[in-house]
Order: sequence, then structure tokens, then C-alpha cells
Amino acid sequence: MTETVSPMVVALGDPAGIGPEIAAKAWASRDMSRLAPFFVVGDRRSIDAVWQGPIERIRDPREAVGVFFRAIPLLQVEDAGVIDPGKPSFEGARCALASLEIAAGIARSGAARALITAPVSKTQLYSVGFTHPGQTEFIAEQCGVSRDNAVMLLAGPTLKVVPVTTHLPLADVSANLSIEMIVAKARATAKGLQRNFGIEQPRLAFAGFNPHAGENGALGREEIDFIAPAIEILRGEGIDAVGPIAADAMFHARARAGYDVAICMYHDQALIPLKTLHFDDGVNMTLGLPIVRTAPDHGTAFGIAGKDQANPGAMIAAIRMAAAATVARAAQACAQAA
Amino acid sequence: MTETVSPMVVALGDPAGIGPEIAAKAWASRDMSRLAPFFVVGDRRSIDAVWQGPIERIRDPREAVGVFFRAIPLLQVEDAGVIDPGKPSFEGARCALASLEIAAGIARSGAARALITAPVSKTQLYSVGFTHPGQTEFIAEQCGVSRDNAVMLLAGPTLKVVPVTTHLPLADVSANLSIEMIVAKARATAKGLQRNFGIEQPRLAFAGFNPHAGENGALGREEIDFIAPAIEILRGEGIDAVGPIAADAMFHARARAGYDVAICMYHDQALIPLKTLHFDDGVNMTLGLPIVRTAPDHGTAFGIAGKDQANPGAMIAAIRMAAAATVARAAQACAQAA
Repeated sequence: MTETVSPMVVALGDPAGIGPEIAAKAWASRDMSRLAPFFVVGDRRSIDAVWQGPIERIRDPREAVGVFFRAIPLLQVEDAGVIDPGKPSFEGARCALASLEIAAGIARSGAARALITAPVSKTQLYSVGFTHPGQTEFIAEQCGVSRDNAVMLLAGPTLKVVPVTTHLPLADVSANLSIEMIVAKARATAKGLQRNFGIEQPRLAFAGFNPHAGENGALGREEIDFIAPAIEILRGEGIDAVGPIAADAMFHARARAGYDVAICMYHDQALIPLKTLHFDDGVNMTLGLPIVRTAPDHGTAFGIAGKDQANPGAMIAAIRMAAAATVARAAQACAQAA
Repeated sequence: MTETVSPMVVALGDPAGIGPEIAAKAWASRDMSRLAPFFVVGDRRSIDAVWQGPIERIRDPREAVGVFFRAIPLLQVEDAGVIDPGKPSFEGARCALASLEIAAGIARSGAARALITAPVSKTQLYSVGFTHPGQTEFIAEQCGVSRDNAVMLLAGPTLKVVPVTTHLPLADVSANLSIEMIVAKARATAKGLQRNFGIEQPRLAFAGFNPHAGENGALGREEIDFIAPAIEILRGEGIDAVGPIAADAMFHARARAGYDVAICMYHDQALIPLKTLHFDDGVNMTLGLPIVRTAPDHGTAFGIAGKDQANPGAMIAAIRMAAAATVARAAQACAQAA
């Protein structure tokens, strides 16, 4: 059986954050949450520090499915130093980075059918020489995909959003917007929703950048200079694209019913509505990659690490969404082959 | 009785928008919604065009309370030209501006105990020479209050927000932030919540400006340069102030329970969560004025004007909140006098 079902791989993230705890709690809920098999990559002691259940070291991803029913299958990476939940360290950041690299490599190789990443601290990663804006960009590069073609989708039960720009100072966003970038991200989004969610003709709604979507230029020109022209190009390609819409008018329930994904111009424009609505079960999925990659849409939460307070809801949702995406992809591959 | 109960005044806003319709529907719901008496200021024909009920012209605000039980009391202003719901015009914008000026003047004089303003189109107002960023700034100037001391509070049943900057192109916000402005707005907010809502020690939560509140400077410095120093000053004055908090982590239900008002750095940071949660019943209240002023927190909605589709919920909430604020102020005046 281990040959026919490929497991998923979970990178444990910062060992001092809540990643190890929510991965363990997700495993503990595997029957109730109907989770397909996964194994974790990290330092075993980061789970031992916060959880009492069974863990079994594996040496090869192929062992994971056979172990999953009785223990958390774990692939040990380099030593994370002294592990103290809630207290990030240099060694912990190195361990988080190594876990991410190894897990991404396993997913790329096909030995795992999807990659799920627990939270890292960017501040900590920067201190060990990490130069990418976030995990998404790092994974994209590992997969040989350019940043503009890798898209961060944030998804909850009632809303999906894509930030066109991500981890930039807000004052720098305008200078970084371009028609080409918006078009590239939107194309990858449309294709990604088809591929990972099986939505045949995704409906894309574009947020304006300025208050009231710029009021015809009176409150800024990004809508006129970048967003509207991008929408025109996308429509010309047959993509269902509407906007630019005043960002404050597009996230209430009736508005959300009119589209499959909101294309947002900056991080908080996308993340504020998503987390307002889905703080405990939001998932971050990277579109445009050869692999399936998801993550719980929250941070390391150092403040509650080690206190048994972390809610595994978003991690469980991330694992489920990753599994569903692999099924959607397989169905399309079958349909194409038929 | 007309001497003892002072009415409220409603400026009808753009005659081609939904203002006349929602004002009329609010009046029609006066018993069910328990609305205290108000009169409207605008062109009578803008209501006649969208509503069949009784309207009675008054010549003096003192007539309003006596009329309110049987008809909408209306103070006629200049002719709005040809009124065609959904089709804004130059004359309509002039009428909206005249209505606003007259209604604000009546509220300042004390002949009305509160001012409620229906939506205007800024684009239309700019075309007739309006030079203020929005109605709030205009009313502040009419009341002799500086812009930094007049604060736009947006309020729904589960969230109150204050945008420190309002109708600016987003790319210009950073250059317009200052410690002084944040402190001034926050002070006026704290005082305004005491005065208009009777909250003795309001809890203020400050949003960061950048993604993840700047990650200690890695993603922008506005938190370090402006927001944190402002919070320090406010705490020194005894104001309950926390932050800067990552903006995407402060608007879910548990987070909202921890503060009375979120102080936001730009328009959409405040308006996105507010309207995501309270699209149909959000109220805009101006704090820091000698008068009580509220407005429904939505636009002219030209697209649905004249189709009997406009939801009066936010207008009703605005009228009720204005009335409650006058009661809170009166109670404090009594307490001080005692």
C-alpha cells in the first residue's frame, strides 16, 4: 500500500513557535478530520517539548504511510539547539530553514504529493541569512518558478484572496505595481483555481488601490494606470475579470458571492478581510507551482507557544486543502489522458 | 412640546443618489425603529421621485417635531434641476452642497440637536468647486475645528474604527503621517468615545501601517517612527493605548473584544474590516465637534438609485446613534452641573 498512496510532507517551521504543536494536534485529529497520511520534517524535540503523543522517526518518505496510523512519522533534520517554546533562537531559525528546504525538496521529487509548511518568523530567518521576502518566494525559487508566476492565495470557507504584492513596505507598493505583474498574477490565479480547485471559469474581482478605487483619478491614479489596463488584457484572453472595485465594498457577504477570488494590490488589503472572517481556519496556498503547497495562514504565535493554547484549525484546513488539490489535479490528469 | 424636544436634521445628500430614498424609508420606519423626530433638508422633488409617502414643507426647524408624526418635515433648499435618480448632475451637486451647508448651520445654531448627512459624490462635489477631502472636513471647518481634531469614527454593532488619514492617495499616506497627527486624532477619539458613547476609559488599539506591523523595521519604519512614539505619549497622558498591532490580526471576533476602537492609519485599513462586518448598518460619526454628526457609512449608490432597492439600515442606525449621543452628552452635562 505504501507504493500506491504517496504521503504529504509537513515542514514544522520555527521550533519555538506553535508549528510543532499544531502539527501534532492535527495528527491527533486525523480520524475526526479525515486527514490523508503525512509526515513531518523538523527536530523531534520541538514536538516532544509541547506534546505527549507517539512520534516515530522515519528515514524515508516511503515509510510514512505505514507509520501514520500509530504515530507521527518524523524525518529528523539538524539539531535545533536548546528548544524553549516561545523563545526563538538562531539555531531554531537554522532548523526551520533546513526543514523547509528538505521538505520542499521531497515534494519536488514526488516522494511527497503535497507540501504543507508551518509558520516561520521572518525576523528570525533574516538573522540566519534568508533573503527571500517569505516562504512562498523561497519555495517558488526552489521549484524554478519566477516570483510573478508564483501566487499566494489565501483561502477560507467564504473568501479567497490573492495579494499582488506581498511583503513590501506599504509606501513602496505603488512603485512596485505594474500592468505586467497584475496580469501575470491574475493569469496564474485563474489557472491555479482551475488546477487546484477544479473551477472551470474562475471569476476574478480586482480591488482598487486607493480609497474609493481612486474616484476616477481624484484620489490616486493606480487604478487608471495599472489595474484597469490589466483587466482589459485579461478579458481579452477570455478570463472573467471585473473591477477595479472600491476595496471596502467588496468583502461583505453579498459581494463575496459574486466572485471566486479577490485580486488585491497589497498584503493587508487581502489579509485584513480574510483574517477578519477566517482567523482560525485560513489557508495559504501557493498557485503556479509544479507542487501543491499550503500553509496555515497565521504566524509563529510565540506568545502562546508551549501553553497548549494553539488552535490547529488552520493547519488541519491546510492539510485538507492540500489533499483536495492533489485529487483535483489527478482528476484533470486522468481527464486529459482519457 | 416643540420647545422641549429639539429635532435632528438630515441633509439629503446628492439628489440623484439613494439619500432621499433611505431618509424617506427611515421616516417610514420611525415607530418600529424608535426614531426621535428629525427633518430633512434638500429638494422635495428628490424624495417625490423615489417615494410615495407624505412630505410637508416647514419654514422653521421648530415646526419639525409637530409635523414628524404625520409626514416627513422638509426644509426646501435651492432647486436641484432635473432630477433623474442614478444620473448625477451639476445642479444636483450644487443642491447637495447647499443642503449640507444649511443643515450644518442649523445644527451649529442649536435649532437641531444633531446633524445626519446622506451620501454625496465627491467627484460631483469637486466639479462644483468643493475643495475639502470629504464632508467630515467640511463640517469641521464650518464648526471652527481643525482637521486634526475632527475625527471620523466608523461604527458598527461589533467594531468601531478611526482612520487617522482619510481621503488621500494611498501612496501619499506615509508622507502625511506624523506623531502629532496620530496623537491628536487618538486624543480626540478617546474624548469622543467618552462624550458620545459614555465610555469612561476607552481602550484604543493601534494598527501597524506595514505588513506584519513592519516586522521590527524589516518591512517599513512607520511603526517605529510614528506609531509607537505616539502610543507612548498617549499612555503618558493616561489614555489606554496598545499597539502597533499587525492590522490583519486585530479584526477577528476575539481580538475585537479587547478594545473599544481601532485606530487605523489609512482609509481602507479602517473601512475594509468595518464594511466586511457591517456593510448594511455601519455609521460614520464625527468626533471632536461641538455638534453631534453622523452619516450612513456608504456612498450614493447611483447604480441602484430610484429602483426601490436601497437598504435604509445604515441611515436608521445613523439617526439612532446621533440621538443616543445627544442623550449621552446631556447626561454628562447634568452630571457636571450637579
